[in-house]
Amino acid sequence: MPDTGRSVHAIPITLEAAHSSAQYEVLVGAGLLSGCAERLSRACPAHRYAIISDDRVQPLYASVLRENLAADGMQSDVFTFPAGEEHKTRATWAAVTDAMLAAGLGRDTAVVALGGGVVGDLAGFVAATYMRGLPVAQVPTTLLAMIDASVGGKTAVDTPAGKNLVGAFHQPAVVLADPTVLRTLPDEHFRSGLAEAVKHGAIADSDHLAWIAAATTSLLSGDSDALVELIVRSVQIKADFVSRDERETGPRKALNFGHTIGHAVEAVSGFRLLHGEAVAIGMAVEASIGEAIGVTRHGTAARLREILLHIGLPVAVPPELSREEILRSTRTDKKARAGRVEYALIEELGQAGAEGSWGYAVEDEVVRGVLGDGAPTSD
Amino acid sequence: MPDTGRSVHAIPITLEAAHSSAQYEVLVGAGLLSGCAERLSRACPAHRYAIISDDRVQPLYASVLRENLAADGMQSDVFTFPAGEEHKTRATWAAVTDAMLAAGLGRDTAVVALGGGVVGDLAGFVAATYMRGLPVAQVPTTLLAMIDASVGGKTAVDTPAGKNLVGAFHQPAVVLADPTVLRTLPDEHFRSGLAEAVKHGAIADSDHLAWIAAATTSLLSGDSDALVELIVRSVQIKADFVSRDERETGPRKALNFGHTIGHAVEAVSGFRLLHGEAVAIGMAVEASIGEAIGVTRHGTAARLREILLHIGLPVAVPPELSREEILRSTRTDKKARAGRVEYALIEELGQAGAEGSWGYAVEDEVVRGVLGDGAPTSD
Repeated sequence: MPDTGRSVHAIPITLEAAHSSAQYEVLVGAGLLSGCAERLSRACPAHRYAIISDDRVQPLYASVLRENLAADGMQSDVFTFPAGEEHKTRATWAAVTDAMLAAGLGRDTAVVALGGGVVGDLAGFVAATYMRGLPVAQVPTTLLAMIDASVGGKTAVDTPAGKNLVGAFHQPAVVLADPTVLRTLPDEHFRSGLAEAVKHGAIADSDHLAWIAAATTSLLSGDSDALVELIVRSVQIKADFVSRDERETGPRKALNFGHTIGHAVEAVSGFRLLHGEAVAIGMAVEASIGEAIGVTRHGTAARLREILLHIGLPVAVPPELSREEILRSTRTDKKARAGRVEYALIEELGQAGAEGSWGYAVEDEVVRGVLGDGAPTSD
Repeated sequence: MPDTGRSVHAIPITLEAAHSSAQYEVLVGAGLLSGCAERLSRACPAHRYAIISDDRVQPLYASVLRENLAADGMQSDVFTFPAGEEHKTRATWAAVTDAMLAAGLGRDTAVVALGGGVVGDLAGFVAATYMRGLPVAQVPTTLLAMIDASVGGKTAVDTPAGKNLVGAFHQPAVVLADPTVLRTLPDEHFRSGLAEAVKHGAIADSDHLAWIAAATTSLLSGDSDALVELIVRSVQIKADFVSRDERETGPRKALNFGHTIGHAVEAVSGFRLLHGEAVAIGMAVEASIGEAIGVTRHGTAARLREILLHIGLPVAVPPELSREEILRSTRTDKKARAGRVEYALIEELGQAGAEGSWGYAVEDEVVRGVLGDGAPTSD
C-alpha cells in the first residue's frame, strides 16, 4: 500500500459572492509543513514573509517553517503574541501591525498565519488591514482551524462587547494543513475539533458522520491516513457551503448549527468550555429544539448525543450555568437580526433545514423547556 | 435658464478588479443633503443608520440629515469624534466602534460618513470592519473629499509610523455630493481641494485644466453651476482611472502625480501644510523632475506653476523644510517597493506617463537638483 500520508490532497475553493470571486486551494498532506516553501511562493509570491504565531505554537513550528523558506531563498520574520482567546484583541492586532511596520515591511509582504483559530483570525485581520491588505497563507495547527476556521475567509478580533465583533472577510491565498502537527495538540483540543467535523456530517453528510463514529479510535491515536480523510471530507463540506455564499446571507447559515446555543454556553461559562465542547452541547440542545418545534425528525437528538458521547464530548449544559443567562446571551448574538434570535436547525442527520428557511425563529419558552431537560436550572 | 443647481448628476462608478466588481453612483447636486433620504434608503437599505461625523461638521449638517431621514421613517444615531487628522487613529476607530456596539447596532446597520476626508477614511474603516463589514454611504462636505477621497473605496487610519498605514478597500454604496455645503468651508480648504482637481486635469484632460483656470473666480465665489461642473468632471476623471484598476497596481498610479513629493513635504512640515497645498508643491516639483529626466515636455512645469499660483496655491517647498528630510521621507512612502522610490509623472498637461511605465524610478541626485532650485537648502 502506498504511503498516502506523503501525498498531498488539494481541495479547490471557489467563492462566488454578489460582487467578488476568489479561488484558492486547501492543501492537506502529512509532512506538508517541512516542504511548503515552493507551494507558498507560488500561491503568494512576496518580497518578504511575515510569520505570525502565538507563543505556544511558535516554539514548536516557526523554525521548521523559516528554515524551509530560507532554503528556497525566501526571507521571513516571525511575530509572536501571547496565546489565548483573551489576546485576540485590537491591542494585539495593533502591536503586531506596529512590529511589522517597525521591521520595514511594505506592500510586497505576505502574511503566514501559523497556529490555531485565534492566530488565523488575528493574523488574517492584520493581513486584511495592513496597508489596506496583504495576501495571507493560513497554516492551521489545530484540527478545529484545519477543518473550520481556515476555510471561508473570516478574520476578526474580539472587543469587550463580544467575540469577533470587529473583522473582515479576507480570503487566504492558500491553506496548508499538515496533520502531523496535530500530534502535539492536547487531547481535549483534538476532541473539540472533532465537534465541528460532526457538525459538518450532521448538516450535510450522514455517511461522513457514521465514518467519524467508526474511526474515532484511529483518529484519537493520530493515524495519518484517517486524519487526512477526516480533514479532506470536512473541508469539502465546509467549502461547498461557503462557495455558494461567501457573505453568509443564505445557505452558509447552516454552518451555524449548534452555534446559537454553543456561543451562549461558551460565553456564560466564561470560556472555560472549549469552543468545540460548547458546540457539541449546542448541537445536542438545538437538535432537541428542532424536534420540539417539529423541524427535526424524532430520534435525531438521541443519535447525535450518542456519537458525541462516544467521541468524549459533552452533550448537556453544565448544571452550574444559568439558563436565563444563556437565553439572554443568545439575544446578543451577531446572528440576531431585528431582535429575532435565529437557529440553524437540521431536518435529520446529514440534512440541514430547507433552503430559504435556514434561520428558524424559536420562542424563548421552547428553548427554556429544552434547556430545563438536561439538568436542573440554577435560577 | 433652468435652475441647474436643483438637478442631480449621477456618475456611475464601475470597478473591475481581478476578483471583484462593484457598482455605485456618485450623485452631485445642489440641495442634495436636505432631500437624500429616499436615495440613501434605495442605495443602502438598513434597519438603522449610523451617522459618523466630526465635531466641526456635526453641528452644521447632522441634524438636517437626521431630520431628513426621520421624515422618511428611517432611524439614525449620530457618532461624533474630534476633528483633525491627529484623531484619524486606531483609538478613535475603536471608540466609534464601541459606541455603535453599545447602541446595539447589528449587521443590519448602514454607516453614513458625513464630513471631509478624515471622516470618510475613518467612518469607512469603521464600516469595513464592524461585524466584518457594513455598507457605507459617503456624504463628503469638503471639495477634496467630493472629488477625491469619496471615490475609489480607500479607507484608512494613521499609525505613529505614518499616514493611512492601516485600512481596507471598502467601496461605498453611494456618494452624495452637495456643493452648497462648501459655502461653510474655509477658503484655504477650498483652494486645497482645487489642487486635486488641477491634478485630474494635469494627468488626463487639458481642457478641464484650462476651464479651472478660467473659472477660478466663479468657483471661489461659490457659484453653484460652476461647482457642479467642477465636481462632475473631476469625479469622472478619477472614476475612469479607478474603474480600470481598483487595487492600484496599474493605471491608477497616475493619480499619485504630485503625491510622492507632496506626502513628503506634508509630513516634514508636521502637517502644517494642508494636503492640497502639499500636492500643489508636489506637482510643481514633479513636473520639473519629469522635465529633468526627459519624461515631461519642456515648459509644462512653468505652465502648471502659473495655474496653481493663479488659484492661490503654493508651488515651492518652504525654505525652512530640510531637503534631505524630504528625500528620506519619500523613501518611507507606501509607494516605495523593494527600496525603489516611484514617481507618477506626466508627459505633458493632460497626459499621464505612458501605460506600463506609470512608476518612474528617479535618482536622489535629480530630486536634489530640482528641490535645490526652489529655495536655498536648509542643510
